[in-house]
Amino acid sequence: MSHPSTVSGLLTDVRQVGRDARRGGYSRFTYSDADLELREWFVAEASRRSLDVDVDRNGAIWAWRPGPGGSLEDAVVTGSHVDSVPGGGEFDGPLGIASALVAVDHLDASGARLDRPLAVVLFPEEEGARFGQACLGSQLMTGAFDPVAALDLRDVDGVSLAEALRRGGIDPTRLGRDDQALSRIGAFVELHVEQGRGLIDLGQPVAIASSIIGHGLWRLTVSGEGNHAGATAMDHRRDPLVAAAAVIALVRDAAREVPGARATVGRVQPIPGGTNVIASRVDVWVDVRHDDDQVARSLVSTIFDRARRAAALEGCDVTLTEQSYGGSVDFDPTLRDRLAAVLPEAPILRSGAGHDAGVLADVVPTAMLFTRNPTGISHSPEEQIEEADAESGAAALADVLRDLLTLDEAPPASTPGRP
Amino acid sequence: MSHPSTVSGLLTDVRQVGRDARRGGYSRFTYSDADLELREWFVAEASRRSLDVDVDRNGAIWAWRPGPGGSLEDAVVTGSHVDSVPGGGEFDGPLGIASALVAVDHLDASGARLDRPLAVVLFPEEEGARFGQACLGSQLMTGAFDPVAALDLRDVDGVSLAEALRRGGIDPTRLGRDDQALSRIGAFVELHVEQGRGLIDLGQPVAIASSIIGHGLWRLTVSGEGNHAGATAMDHRRDPLVAAAAVIALVRDAAREVPGARATVGRVQPIPGGTNVIASRVDVWVDVRHDDDQVARSLVSTIFDRARRAAALEGCDVTLTEQSYGGSVDFDPTLRDRLAAVLPEAPILRSGAGHDAGVLADVVPTAMLFTRNPTGISHSPEEQIEEADAESGAAALADVLRDLLTLDEAPPASTPGRP
Repeated sequence: MSHPSTVSGLLTDVRQVGRDARRGGYSRFTYSDADLELREWFVAEASRRSLDVDVDRNGAIWAWRPGPGGSLEDAVVTGSHVDSVPGGGEFDGPLGIASALVAVDHLDASGARLDRPLAVVLFPEEEGARFGQACLGSQLMTGAFDPVAALDLRDVDGVSLAEALRRGGIDPTRLGRDDQALSRIGAFVELHVEQGRGLIDLGQPVAIASSIIGHGLWRLTVSGEGNHAGATAMDHRRDPLVAAAAVIALVRDAAREVPGARATVGRVQPIPGGTNVIASRVDVWVDVRHDDDQVARSLVSTIFDRARRAAALEGCDVTLTEQSYGGSVDFDPTLRDRLAAVLPEAPILRSGAGHDAGVLADVVPTAMLFTRNPTGISHSPEEQIEEADAESGAAALADVLRDLLTLDEAPPASTPGRP
Repeated sequence: MSHPSTVSGLLTDVRQVGRDARRGGYSRFTYSDADLELREWFVAEASRRSLDVDVDRNGAIWAWRPGPGGSLEDAVVTGSHVDSVPGGGEFDGPLGIASALVAVDHLDASGARLDRPLAVVLFPEEEGARFGQACLGSQLMTGAFDPVAALDLRDVDGVSLAEALRRGGIDPTRLGRDDQALSRIGAFVELHVEQGRGLIDLGQPVAIASSIIGHGLWRLTVSGEGNHAGATAMDHRRDPLVAAAAVIALVRDAAREVPGARATVGRVQPIPGGTNVIASRVDVWVDVRHDDDQVARSLVSTIFDRARRAAALEGCDVTLTEQSYGGSVDFDPTLRDRLAAVLPEAPILRSGAGHDAGVLADVVPTAMLFTRNPTGISHSPEEQIEEADAESGAAALADVLRDLLTLDEAPPASTPGRP
């Protein structure tokens, strides 16, 4: 294919898949119908570009342009994900995949000599929206998450990851650290829609990431006494939802006391959850982030202490379970400087969100690009991308890839249209 | 059948149906597999007793023992429901159905002459756990709920009542006020597990109901700004779940200020509900009850005023929607006195919970019996019944039915084993 496609053209097909009428936006849960459709779309687009498609043991899809002599070693890899949070935006994940495909077209159109293999990779379950574990695909690949524990993860309907994998045509017994896949990655560059206002404030379309803030998820379970909402006098109650309300309030207050910290309750689940029932138990998920891992853990500890005291006032108990923790990540400084040399106008920004690139950064040189989001809003239908910014992002990615793929040469001419 | 069965024997079959492994207890949502299985069980037990089974236009199942000359007019009707709240107890509903069947056996075994028709009725969607409208079956029968609006009610998966009815083999186009069914009811007596501690405190196994407290359900929708939990600084948030937490706390506080009032939040739904997402909207359901309808409405108004102020502090808005309201019910005093004459030791208790009997009380003479619950806990797996109390309740119901079914005679001998 010698004529480059456009990001907005590629996303026209994606836009129809996984709309969520109830929440607004998109719900594309890993190995759901919507996700499987987008995986097929990716395979079709990769094949159209004569990339060799392969699904690895953890369900990531790889689309290869082998290097000289058919080599797959020391590859330059780009990619992202297509799964979404519930009611998420259109671009979170798919923008990185579409930009990667368009970047391949730019490279092909420019006739650039590729001295190294190139791959586009699609990671499964980046958001953790179905099985509760963000970046599950990349964490399995690097060995950061135990494959035996993973197979037992269940979605809200009780379907296990093992069952979902089989539905996606993936053998669950092969899950786990994938040294072959890791050893082939010479460098990984992920492009992602920006999830904040950095580029809006700076008036630039594309940024380079410096680091990812540390990020953990904890579950506080508040236990009280379930009973009938009509037959139980107000003074005879041990209502865990009243206690959980106090917890939600104190999470926010505690985070505000710690500079740079973010703590959020986005999901709360009263059990049994009937409107005419005093709950017996309430699960409250607390998302905590800070650049300094010690500060993050100390904040969680403060939240738990205060939650116990607040719950005790309602005759309720609280337990704390850590569901995940990823320490803060500094991306490879050499690779980052190389991107900055190719994209001299791109600002360097910190990411408040986690990414598969953050997981891979532990084992391979990794970098990220962000494309401007004119609302600054993320994980919401209000997330947006301007068409011109999307094409600038893909062109910037093409320039970065060309630089990394071309050995021992003067810097090549830049792709038309890049910032 | 000349040999009476027992309530605990009948409930042995019911005990296997609709267990909820996640919540504990039972989830038997109307027209779900579990509910359909219990409806079939009821039809089979009714047929075993040579009762004539008929499903009415609103999905209630009737089991008839016609009166002299095959009459179905001026019938004595007893019955209850088999659907449950999410994670509810074993007896809420099925105890009334099983006790009614055993009472029929007592009547048959005693060879009592029946001067009026007798019917056992099973009402659908008493709890409102699937479609959000408590006592939907009886409200449709009496015309208290609009059948056109009912067909549009949807469960959490978006399935409409019309679709669910079809699955249950019921023609949705026939829904609505059923004058034929209503005109046949001479008196209705519902037996139910007690949903409080009245009988525990009084040391009695069976009570007669005096009244039902007024009961309404409102939805408060709190709107803010959905965004990314990691990328959004604490001071840039309009988090509706923080506002909803304040609402949950103030609902309880407001109810405590009003003597005799009960207000409960048992269900709260953040949209979209991802753990790493600041919600854009939160639905909070508020169950409010008071004997005095004006006091209940005034309490709701206080809650709404305070909710708006609390939400404004978080930059959020609140809207209020009334989902249902049933005024307080005084059961027919003549019928109540007649039950009291048959059961002289049974105390007279108020019900804090709503029942189909409360809906029918608007149009026919209606009464209720309660069987002791040794935990006093309801709408929870902890709800309990002692076997001896269950048999006493069925025997008491048999005595009441015999008294109502026998015209112009000296009071018959009581059933052995009644309290």
